[in-house]
Amino acid sequence: MTNTQLTLIQIDNYGPWTVTPEPRREVDLQTLQSRLYADLSQLFGNRDGYVFFSRFDNMVAVTNGIDTDAHALIQESIGNRYPVTVSLSIGTGETPATAIETASEQLQAAGSAQASDRREILRGEPVADPDRTAEDVQIAHFDVNDATGKYTDRLNEFDTFINIEQSYAELMRYLRETHDSLSFFVGGDNIIATCPDLDAEQYHDAIDHVSEAVGVELKVGVGRAADAQSAGMAAKHALETCRYDGRDVVFGDQ
Amino acid sequence: MTNTQLTLIQIDNYGPWTVTPEPRREVDLQTLQSRLYADLSQLFGNRDGYVFFSRFDNMVAVTNGIDTDAHALIQESIGNRYPVTVSLSIGTGETPATAIETASEQLQAAGSAQASDRREILRGEPVADPDRTAEDVQIAHFDVNDATGKYTDRLNEFDTFINIEQSYAELMRYLRETHDSLSFFVGGDNIIATCPDLDAEQYHDAIDHVSEAVGVELKVGVGRAADAQSAGMAAKHALETCRYDGRDVVFGDQ
Amino acid sequence: MTNTQLTLIQIDNYGPWTVTPEPRREVDLQTLQSRLYADLSQLFGNRDGYVFFSRFDNMVAVTNGIDTDAHALIQESIGNRYPVTVSLSIGTGETPATAIETASEQLQAAGSAQASDRREILRGEPVADPDRTAEDVQIAHFDVNDATGKYTDRLNEFDTFINIEQSYAELMRYLRETHDSLSFFVGGDNIIATCPDLDAEQYHDAIDHVSEAVGVELKVGVGRAADAQSAGMAAKHALETCRYDGRDVVFGDQ
Amino acid sequence: MTNTQLTLIQIDNYGPWTVTPEPRREVDLQTLQSRLYADLSQLFGNRDGYVFFSRFDNMVAVTNGIDTDAHALIQESIGNRYPVTVSLSIGTGETPATAIETASEQLQAAGSAQASDRREILRGEPVADPDRTAEDVQIAHFDVNDATGKYTDRLNEFDTFINIEQSYAELMRYLRETHDSLSFFVGGDNIIATCPDLDAEQYHDAIDHVSEAVGVELKVGVGRAADAQSAGMAAKHALETCRYDGRDVVFGDQ
Repeated sequence: MTNTQLTLIQIDNYGPWTVTPEPRREVDLQTLQSRLYADLSQLFGNRDGYVFFSRFDNMVAVTNGIDTDAHALIQESIGNRYPVTVSLSIGTGETPATAIETASEQLQAAGSAQASDRREILRGEPVADPDRTAEDVQIAHFDVNDATGKYTDRLNEFDTFINIEQSYAELMRYLRETHDSLSFFVGGDNIIATCPDLDAEQYHDAIDHVSEAVGVELKVGVGRAADAQSAGMAAKHALETCRYDGRDVVFGDQ
Repeated sequence: MTNTQLTLIQIDNYGPWTVTPEPRREVDLQTLQSRLYADLSQLFGNRDGYVFFSRFDNMVAVTNGIDTDAHALIQESIGNRYPVTVSLSIGTGETPATAIETASEQLQAAGSAQASDRREILRGEPVADPDRTAEDVQIAHFDVNDATGKYTDRLNEFDTFINIEQSYAELMRYLRETHDSLSFFVGGDNIIATCPDLDAEQYHDAIDHVSEAVGVELKVGVGRAADAQSAGMAAKHALETCRYDGRDVVFGDQ
Repeated sequence: MTNTQLTLIQIDNYGPWTVTPEPRREVDLQTLQSRLYADLSQLFGNRDGYVFFSRFDNMVAVTNGIDTDAHALIQESIGNRYPVTVSLSIGTGETPATAIETASEQLQAAGSAQASDRREILRGEPVADPDRTAEDVQIAHFDVNDATGKYTDRLNEFDTFINIEQSYAELMRYLRETHDSLSFFVGGDNIIATCPDLDAEQYHDAIDHVSEAVGVELKVGVGRAADAQSAGMAAKHALETCRYDGRDVVFGDQ
Repeated sequence: MTNTQLTLIQIDNYGPWTVTPEPRREVDLQTLQSRLYADLSQLFGNRDGYVFFSRFDNMVAVTNGIDTDAHALIQESIGNRYPVTVSLSIGTGETPATAIETASEQLQAAGSAQASDRREILRGEPVADPDRTAEDVQIAHFDVNDATGKYTDRLNEFDTFINIEQSYAELMRYLRETHDSLSFFVGGDNIIATCPDLDAEQYHDAIDHVSEAVGVELKVGVGRAADAQSAGMAAKHALETCRYDGRDVVFGDQ
C-alpha cells in the first residue's frame, strides 16, 4: 500500500500578473517560469522530493518526508527571490489521485487562483513520521523504445514531438482514469508517474493501451521507497535493466 | 506570405549523458534542462526571437532576423556554461512545417542525435536581409476560455491539467496536419503557434475542431511582423482584445 | 568556545580552463561564477550553512551540521550541472583560522589547484554529532553607519565603493591577524565574519581600528548558535538593534 | 582619446527591502544578488557590454554602443523577473571617472537610493553613434604573477585571499586617484579596469606602486576598441602574451 504525499504548488494570481498593466514579454515569462521550476526542483529535491512542472503556474511535487516547516521555508525563499509568490497545499492518500484531490480542494477553499488577496497559503498535513513506511512512494519511469532511432533521427523534430506528445496525452489520461496515477512528461521521451501500489500486469496494461491507441511503444522501470528521490532512482535503474534485457516492465529493488 | 526562419536546437548526445556512468539524479536533470531553456530564451529573446521548450532536449526557436554569427555566439555561450553542448540548425520556408523539415534534415545529415562525435554542429542559412519583410512571421497565441473558472478553481489540478493537455495534443496535431503550423504549450492554459499565412476562417476551423474533439474552448490572438517578438506581442494584444469583446479570433495590428 | 566547521570549495583547474583553447568571453565567466556561487549558497543554505564568494574560484562555507554525505551530494549536483567540477575540503577548529588552515592543507596535499588530474576531491572530517554544541558558531554581521547618507547619495558610486572596499580590506586583515576571524564582503555595505569566541571589547577594538585606519565607521551584530544560519540570523537581529538604539556592538540571543 | 560610456545600475530601495518586515535570510539575499548580476551580465553582455558586480546593490557597466532603448528593455526585463527593480543612469566622458561622476549625480538628483518612491529611473545620454570611434574604450586586464604557485597552493585560502584583496584595494584606489580609472575585482586573481587613454608607462607605474605598497606582483594586458567586449577580449589576448613572454605590460591589437 502506498501512502503518497503530494504538494500542489500554485503561483498566486499569476494570470492577471502576466498581463498587468499590459502583456509582459513572453521571453521574460518563459524565463521566470522555467527558473522558478528549477529552483523548486532544487528546494524540494534537496529534501528528497520530486517536482513536476506540469502547467508551470501549477506544479505538482511528491513530498513524502518533507514537513510543514520545510514547506514554509521553501515558500519564503521563493517570495524572497521572485516577483510572484506561491501557495502550497499538501495532500496525502493511498493513491496519488486522492492526494491531489485533497490538496486541490484545500487550496480552492482558501480562494480563487486569481484572487488578488489570496497569497502564500500553506495548507494540509504531511504524513506523520510514525506512519511512514518504506513503500509509501511508487515511482514509474517510462520512456519510448528506441526513440532516437525511430523518431529523432528520422522524422522532422516536430513530427517526433507529436508522437511523443500523443503518447504522453494518452498515458496520462489512461493512468489517471484506470489506475489513479499521475503522469508527467519530463523531457526527451521520458514520462514519470507517481502511482499507487500497481503490479506488473497493470503496467503492461497501460503500455499496451498506449501502443494500441497511438502506436508508440513504451517501457517502464518501477521503484518503491520511503521518498520520491529513492523511489525515482530505483525506477531509473530498473529502466536501465529494461534497456539491457529487453523487458517492458521491470521493478527495481527498493 | 510568411517566410519563417526556425532554428532546431538539439543537446548533443544527451540521452547517453543522462545515464553515464550511471543514471544522474532527476532533480539535477530537471534543473539543467529548465535553466538551459531559460538561458536560450534570453539569448534568442534578446535578439527578438522566441524559443519553445518542446522536448527540452530538442527545442525549436523562431529566429527571423538572427544571423549565423549570433547563432555561433549563442552556441559558444552555452558551451561555456553547461556540461553539455548544443547543435543548431537553421531552416527557412513559406511554412513553419517546411522550415523545421529542412532544419531537421540538415542536422540528421550531420550525424545521429546520440553520436558521441557529433558536437556543436551549426548548419543552415538565415533569410537574407534583403528578402525579409514585415509579414515574415505569423504568431498565434491561444488560451482556454475561462480556464480558472471552469477548471483550476473547480477540478483537482491533475484533471485540469488533463483537459489542457488533451486540448494541446489535439491542437498541435491538427494545426500541423491541416495548416502546416507548429504549436507549443507555454504554460498555464497558453499555446503559441508559429503559422504560415492563415486567415480567420482557418483559425475558427482549428478552434472548432478542438472543441468538438475534446470539449475545450479556445480563443486566439494573431500577430504578424518581421520577427517573433513583435509578432508575438501583437498576438498578445489581440488576445487581450478577445478577452474584452468576447470574440474567438482577433488579428492584431502589426 | 566555538568549534567552527569550514568547507573550502575550489573549482578544479579553473584558471587553465578559462583560457583553453583560447580566452573565454568574460561575460560567460562572470555568469558561470556568480551562478555557481548562487547554487552553492542554496545547496549549503538549505542545510543551514553559509557560503561566501570570496574569490569565486575559491569559496569558503561555514558548514556546522552538514555531514560528509551531504557534501558528496552537493559535489555531485554541481558536477551534473556545470562545465567545471569542484573539490571540497572540510576543516574544523576552535577558531576559523585553524579550520581554514586544515582545510587548505588537506586540499593542497591532494594536488595543485591547477592540476588537470585532480578532480572532485572530498577531504576532512565534520564535527561529530555528539561534539556539537549551541555555541559552535559565532557570526558577526557588520555594516557601515549611514552608508547611504554619507556615501551612496553624496559621492560618485566608485568613490563610495572605494570607502567600503578600504574598510573591508582593513577589517579582514585586522580580524584575521588579531582575532583569528575570517571576514567576507557580502554586498552593499555589509561584511560578515565567522569568529571564535570574541567578546564585545574585541569587536569594539576592531571597529575602532578600522575607524582610525581608514575613517569608516562600522557597527556589528553578533549571533551564536549551533549552525551558521541560526547564528547569522541572530546577528542580523542584533544589527537591527544597533540601528534602533545607536550602539556599535550588540550580541543577539542565541 | 577614450570616450567611455558607463551605466550605474542601482537596486531601488534595496537596504530597507532586505530587512522588511524583518531581516531576510542571507542565503536568499546572496542568491538574489548574484543571479541579478549574472542576468545583467548576460543582458548587457549580449550587447557587447561589461558589467562589474562591485557592491552588488550598485553595479557599474561599460556600455558603449548600447542605446537608451536597450537600457529600457533591460530595466523592464529585470522588473519582470525579480522582486526588486533597478534604476539606470548613463554617463559619458573622456575618462571613466568623469563618466561615473555624471551617472551618479543624475541618479542622486532623482532621489535617494533608499527613497521608496524612486523606482526604475532611467537617465543620461549614450554617446551618439556618429561620435563613436574605434578607441572609445580602453580595458586593462590585470592578474597576479603565479598566483597559484605563490599563494593558492602554499598559503591557507584566507591568507591567499588577503593578499589578492590588499592588492585590489591598493590598485583600485591608486588607479582612481592617479589615472581616473575604475578597477573591479572579477574573481580568482583577476582585476579588470576601465581606463582613459593610458600608456605603457602609466601601467608600469601602477604595477610598481602595488608591488611596493603591498608586495603583490601584477601584470596587465590592455585592449582598445569601440565597445567593452572587443576591448576586453583584446586585453585578455594581450595578457596571454604577458604569460608567454614574461612582460608586465602588453597592449593588444584592436
